[in-house]
Amino acid sequence: MRGALCGALVFEGDAADLDEASRIVDAGDVELSPCHSVGGVGAMAGITSPSMPVCVLESSSGQTTFCALNEGIGKALRFGTTDEQTLKRLRWLRDVAMPVLDRGVGKTGPVDVTALQQEGLRRGDECHNRNVASSAALLLRLVRGIVAANSDTSLLAEVLDWATGNPHFFLPFSMASAKGVALSAQGFDGDPTVTAMAGNGVEFGIQVSGLGERWFCAPAPLTGVRCFEGYTIADAQAAMGDSFITEVIGLGAFSLSAAPAIGSFLGTDNSTGHAVVEEMRTICRATSTRFNNPFEDFAGAPIAIDVRRVVSSRTAPMVNNGVAHRLAGIGQIGAGLTRLPLEPFEKALALLDAGHLGSSTER
Amino acid sequence: MRGALCGALVFEGDAADLDEASRIVDAGDVELSPCHSVGGVGAMAGITSPSMPVCVLESSSGQTTFCALNEGIGKALRFGTTDEQTLKRLRWLRDVAMPVLDRGVGKTGPVDVTALQQEGLRRGDECHNRNVASSAALLLRLVRGIVAANSDTSLLAEVLDWATGNPHFFLPFSMASAKGVALSAQGFDGDPTVTAMAGNGVEFGIQVSGLGERWFCAPAPLTGVRCFEGYTIADAQAAMGDSFITEVIGLGAFSLSAAPAIGSFLGTDNSTGHAVVEEMRTICRATSTRFNNPFEDFAGAPIAIDVRRVVSSRTAPMVNNGVAHRLAGIGQIGAGLTRLPLEPFEKALALLDAGHLGSSTER
Repeated sequence: MRGALCGALVFEGDAADLDEASRIVDAGDVELSPCHSVGGVGAMAGITSPSMPVCVLESSSGQTTFCALNEGIGKALRFGTTDEQTLKRLRWLRDVAMPVLDRGVGKTGPVDVTALQQEGLRRGDECHNRNVASSAALLLRLVRGIVAANSDTSLLAEVLDWATGNPHFFLPFSMASAKGVALSAQGFDGDPTVTAMAGNGVEFGIQVSGLGERWFCAPAPLTGVRCFEGYTIADAQAAMGDSFITEVIGLGAFSLSAAPAIGSFLGTDNSTGHAVVEEMRTICRATSTRFNNPFEDFAGAPIAIDVRRVVSSRTAPMVNNGVAHRLAGIGQIGAGLTRLPLEPFEKALALLDAGHLGSSTER
Repeated sequence: MRGALCGALVFEGDAADLDEASRIVDAGDVELSPCHSVGGVGAMAGITSPSMPVCVLESSSGQTTFCALNEGIGKALRFGTTDEQTLKRLRWLRDVAMPVLDRGVGKTGPVDVTALQQEGLRRGDECHNRNVASSAALLLRLVRGIVAANSDTSLLAEVLDWATGNPHFFLPFSMASAKGVALSAQGFDGDPTVTAMAGNGVEFGIQVSGLGERWFCAPAPLTGVRCFEGYTIADAQAAMGDSFITEVIGLGAFSLSAAPAIGSFLGTDNSTGHAVVEEMRTICRATSTRFNNPFEDFAGAPIAIDVRRVVSSRTAPMVNNGVAHRLAGIGQIGAGLTRLPLEPFEKALALLDAGHLGSSTER
């Protein structure tokens, strides 16, 4: 997160180089706010600075949410990488690709991201850590408009080269959509439904429908990690990012069995995928009517994590997350199926049991 | 098939209208040859006339195979539809879309269709009757070259509009690739491996590795059909087309469980998909090392249908096929999971047992 923050300061021109950026951060001269506090989400480090390209989604009730576009695989600011190649791609994304995509979106009718997630489950994605088929589906939905709205075909080819080579192109759309769904469950007094789960590599926290915008926190977990070759668990930073918002609405680990191909990455087999989904069912209040899992004979995904059920069964949710190096600037070193800590759920339940009501001003 | 033949005569300008085309067909003035005889395959009616756009694939040994491009969903010549809208789209495909695609293919490096089929199984396609994710994957692989090779973006948008709207864009590529794989198993004396299965709506036939290009035939089957609303089995023509070549190499019904979403179309559930794959295993000589089925814990697909095993167990192969109306000109009315007849396998086995050797001139 520190790496991404320093990189973003250089990217924005607020620092001449990473050394100056580091001094600015140490001096506390940067105003930070969780993406969640401003109606957005950010993957991994989650740093979203003013000129970064984002997708903006609108829910059927008119609420907007946002998420920074996924830069692509390999070295990326969201994993804390800050080398020149990473910043160059990010500048290209802002200055070259974004206007091309933006004009295309203007030529495209509404895109139903929930429908893409529904279909994603049928195409072997769980729409958190595996998005390859949904990325293709979304791009195919957009490409006609992108081509129709841009007359420079060599520029188009350059942008399509980037977009078609990114298996996580869909992820920010999936996350922003999930945030919109979660917001619709926020703010019902006494309601024990989890509406956000996020980490910053040091702390992990949750928000609960009936308890306002307060975060209930515990040390960030570091379990179930699979490291890429050349790295060990000693290199890993604990869980980070807002992408667990997909688990909040029944995707990711909550639909793990729908994405058997991710098993080779996570080191799990189909029975693990099925067992995780069945376990998550026990801590949820409902079953999705939209997210039908083909591997579960099209049963709906478990949704609406209930802090009461989590605590009484001592079963914390699982998330299907990426893992970054603990040192700023290196980037992704693995992925994992992470068991979240119970403590935030216990803290939230204590307040619910005390009849505490939420307040958006309370921290 | 008659509908498609008459339509093709009008399309090619060999007949002024369908009436004249009908007279030409009745007079026997058309030279017909199975696609298989000339190194190709054709879906459903399978009529492939001289100016029809095809994809041409090359195997690693340099053998080429071909298949007519899929016209799209709805009314289509391959289902025997011959109305003006169908012929207009086919002309547009030849005169407008094909040159655009052709230039794009020229700008694209080799595309590994087997790899797309492998990945297709991971994305919920069985690469015969469900191709939606693989169609997206193939188009994404081609789109950069298509855009780079064509400067007219309004023409590009028109062609992409068609291509991105066709969930079976991948099917002819899957079929032509399957034909290439099947040809590599053709021509080993005494070998009982099935190398082709095809129907024309009246007869169904197979070819066998050790018995040359001879077809072993029986009346075409009409079983397991699910009709679209408004049609009944009485409207259906028996099984037709060369697309069963995908089953010959372990796809289609032989990987049925990989495509759970097709169940809603076929009226089957996951246990049916699994049972079909397991049954097909009993009549095959081998297990694919490439086509790993996520629903079977990544076990390889059954391949190399063995006429001896088919006959001794009295278990004929299944195919996952489309169904056309029995009257020329109407088109698709359903789909089905069809059990093939045993008779062709019995005929072939009798010749193998008699020590008969194949000869390409023998009919």
